[in-house]
Amino acid sequence: MTQTDFIGRLQANVGADIVLRAADANLDRHSRDFLNVMRDDVAILGVAYPRTAEQVSAILVACQADEVPVVPQGGLTSMVGGPVPTRSSLVLSLDRMRAIEEIDEAAGTMTVQAGCILEMVQRSADEAGFFFPLDLGGRGSAQVGGLISTNAGGNRVLRYGMMRESVLGIEAVLPDGTIIHSLNKMLKNNAGYDLKQLFIGAEGTLGVITRAVLRLYPKPLSTNTALLAVADYTRLLALLQRTKTAFGGELGAFEAMWPDMYRLGTVALDRQPPIAIGHGLYILIETLGTDPERSPVQFEEVLGSMIEDGLAEDIVIAASERQRQDMWAIRDCPGEFSKMFWPQRSYDISLPTGAIGDFVTRCTAALRERWPGIGTAFWGHIADSNLHLSLNLPDPDGAALDKAVYEFTGAYGGSISAEHGIGSMKRAYLHYSRTPEEIATMRLLKHAFDPKGIMNPDKVI
Amino acid sequence: MTQTDFIGRLQANVGADIVLRAADANLDRHSRDFLNVMRDDVAILGVAYPRTAEQVSAILVACQADEVPVVPQGGLTSMVGGPVPTRSSLVLSLDRMRAIEEIDEAAGTMTVQAGCILEMVQRSADEAGFFFPLDLGGRGSAQVGGLISTNAGGNRVLRYGMMRESVLGIEAVLPDGTIIHSLNKMLKNNAGYDLKQLFIGAEGTLGVITRAVLRLYPKPLSTNTALLAVADYTRLLALLQRTKTAFGGELGAFEAMWPDMYRLGTVALDRQPPIAIGHGLYILIETLGTDPERSPVQFEEVLGSMIEDGLAEDIVIAASERQRQDMWAIRDCPGEFSKMFWPQRSYDISLPTGAIGDFVTRCTAALRERWPGIGTAFWGHIADSNLHLSLNLPDPDGAALDKAVYEFTGAYGGSISAEHGIGSMKRAYLHYSRTPEEIATMRLLKHAFDPKGIMNPDKVI
Repeated sequence: MTQTDFIGRLQANVGADIVLRAADANLDRHSRDFLNVMRDDVAILGVAYPRTAEQVSAILVACQADEVPVVPQGGLTSMVGGPVPTRSSLVLSLDRMRAIEEIDEAAGTMTVQAGCILEMVQRSADEAGFFFPLDLGGRGSAQVGGLISTNAGGNRVLRYGMMRESVLGIEAVLPDGTIIHSLNKMLKNNAGYDLKQLFIGAEGTLGVITRAVLRLYPKPLSTNTALLAVADYTRLLALLQRTKTAFGGELGAFEAMWPDMYRLGTVALDRQPPIAIGHGLYILIETLGTDPERSPVQFEEVLGSMIEDGLAEDIVIAASERQRQDMWAIRDCPGEFSKMFWPQRSYDISLPTGAIGDFVTRCTAALRERWPGIGTAFWGHIADSNLHLSLNLPDPDGAALDKAVYEFTGAYGGSISAEHGIGSMKRAYLHYSRTPEEIATMRLLKHAFDPKGIMNPDKVI
Repeated sequence: MTQTDFIGRLQANVGADIVLRAADANLDRHSRDFLNVMRDDVAILGVAYPRTAEQVSAILVACQADEVPVVPQGGLTSMVGGPVPTRSSLVLSLDRMRAIEEIDEAAGTMTVQAGCILEMVQRSADEAGFFFPLDLGGRGSAQVGGLISTNAGGNRVLRYGMMRESVLGIEAVLPDGTIIHSLNKMLKNNAGYDLKQLFIGAEGTLGVITRAVLRLYPKPLSTNTALLAVADYTRLLALLQRTKTAFGGELGAFEAMWPDMYRLGTVALDRQPPIAIGHGLYILIETLGTDPERSPVQFEEVLGSMIEDGLAEDIVIAASERQRQDMWAIRDCPGEFSKMFWPQRSYDISLPTGAIGDFVTRCTAALRERWPGIGTAFWGHIADSNLHLSLNLPDPDGAALDKAVYEFTGAYGGSISAEHGIGSMKRAYLHYSRTPEEIATMRLLKHAFDPKGIMNPDKVI
């Protein structure tokens, strides 16, 4: 039985409009994510665009019977190769499952199909008078199924948690075709194992998510943003504690930028720095308040006291939405500085918050010793324990750089993936953050759900 | 090989000070939880009091080899029989693993052994300048391991989430003795499957939790509490939306009390009701604010507008800590009204928030039709979708009452357990809230981790 037969039989089974032969599909779209391209020696056998969980089930049953690998794909914004096939596979695209099915105002929930795009979720929530907080650069392409499968993070985790905290229910299809219909709308539900937790962050290796119930929040009524400069990481930590206490559940962002990155995001991009170059660390703070009159006043008072008490060296509070966006543009500059910082390798790691300052110092020193002239840029969602770094080196040995960074991360008790996942790119380094027992238990779980190993093989473990 | 031999060999293996024969143990303590007593035909073979994960591992290896059931026990505050043996078993008590091992101020974490008591966690957090938010009536006995194993809830879920959201890392021992050491301190960690999620809410059926990293919060600086009366559930829902928008991340509690319960908590207990009897519904609202000056003013303004706009019929704001405690005493009256409401059966369910009003009306009518003269009391953490009810009937047929309530709950798309778990008591009713596919997948998971079925058998599934 040839693989061509498989696609033909699958077409006969679920419809030729649902399953496309490779020759008829847009293979360019389906063979790459944001950073990674499919290897030349790998073939996409066909692309399925199911419209229902039942069709996903039929497809997985067929794949399992013939042991054909299946690679689920959402918006393909992954940076670690999660949705890129590494073997000849059927691609299962969620592109045709984009519907927003229901907004339950009393429950504060939105039920969507897994292919629904993040920006659409945000807009629909807004139009219904609600707020969907998860936000990241790929919002115009990233799909709910992928965001759940990678437990996505972004800029508001401090206040609202990661994607895991915004998912109340899911519908998922197991490799054997079983449809798990768990579209729970309740904040509290302890009726047996919480099965949705298994699929959140599993990167499509245990099954395919087809629908989800998302949690909506009230709209914040007062957004207050400031840029601060501090002398060193010790003062940053003190300022973080003060900020958390002073703003509590209103603290929306606490983003640190080291001088190397701040310079790239301002003068290197011909932008006037809101606070001068030369400080030890820069911090972007944002609160999401509820009182349009009082929240800004309290914001100014609290930040003012940071200067008075010598914690901060300089502060600029955004006086307009334009100024706010300019501040965020500095924070978001890694999307822009590639041109002057190329070739580049980027990292997404997490470390116990107290250890991050020391990590940056020592990691920089170690990298410079081994690769003199290496360019570094450090920044991160520090309050979430999340550090990003970009390295710039002419003709870099990617594997050696990766190993150096992840080994260092492991030595600090950190994680080689904070919010990007493992995909295929970080798989070889998982042991720096997980014990052999943890990895063996992940394999146990994988084998229990996917004994034939058809679901997104070569990813995660 | 007799069972007596098993205990003797286990003593030889891990120590006679660690494993007690049944005759030497306090069997009264280990044979009951808050509501349930072990059946007469069941025997406790022995009680193990390990001090380390390694000892837990040795005990589980021995139990698996001889297929001896193990029942893990924490503070025994369960209300559903979770820690009560249903077969002749070894009891594994965490009573000797009570240490608080570390508070990491920069990370905002506390690392504890699983037997650590909730009240001790709260107190130690407070002494270190932090706040551990999870709180419930059993705080003086409930242990961290049990709170995690049942994904405990309580009064502050609206603001801080359930126990799942307060657990960053765990150490757990699998039935085969494998120690999973995942004492993560980071808010973000997506390095492979998040194994801790498996053990949270699994009620000790997949392994034994031995340590945990808990998330600490800054102390709230302004607690504001009020009691409100509204005409009906529609107005309660409108008031809930207003409250969520106005207080955002500071809203700590939104507790509804139906007239039957409010009467029991006030006049029936010889307490002066802060708001007169006769309204449609009573609501206790509490905010956990950050600004000791502004938060109370905003609280009064927002609640004042509820009266002006006709949403609330009456409001009393607590003017002192004493008045606040009096209001909470009404909310907490189910701990007191047993004497005049006996025999009693109590329920912990959840429903989509919008459906709760209708559920109460129809459920009351259905119960009264079948059992004329039945007494009812409804209350709950409504914003969390959590409804509690107590039923009072002379000479009640417990199984018939349970079936009626859970069947009704299932028909509304609700959960038969919001925050108490399934244990042994609700096991027969799981199908009202979970599909056959969900239950089959739970069994798949159970079998993968515990193929011989030694871990807390007859619980959950």
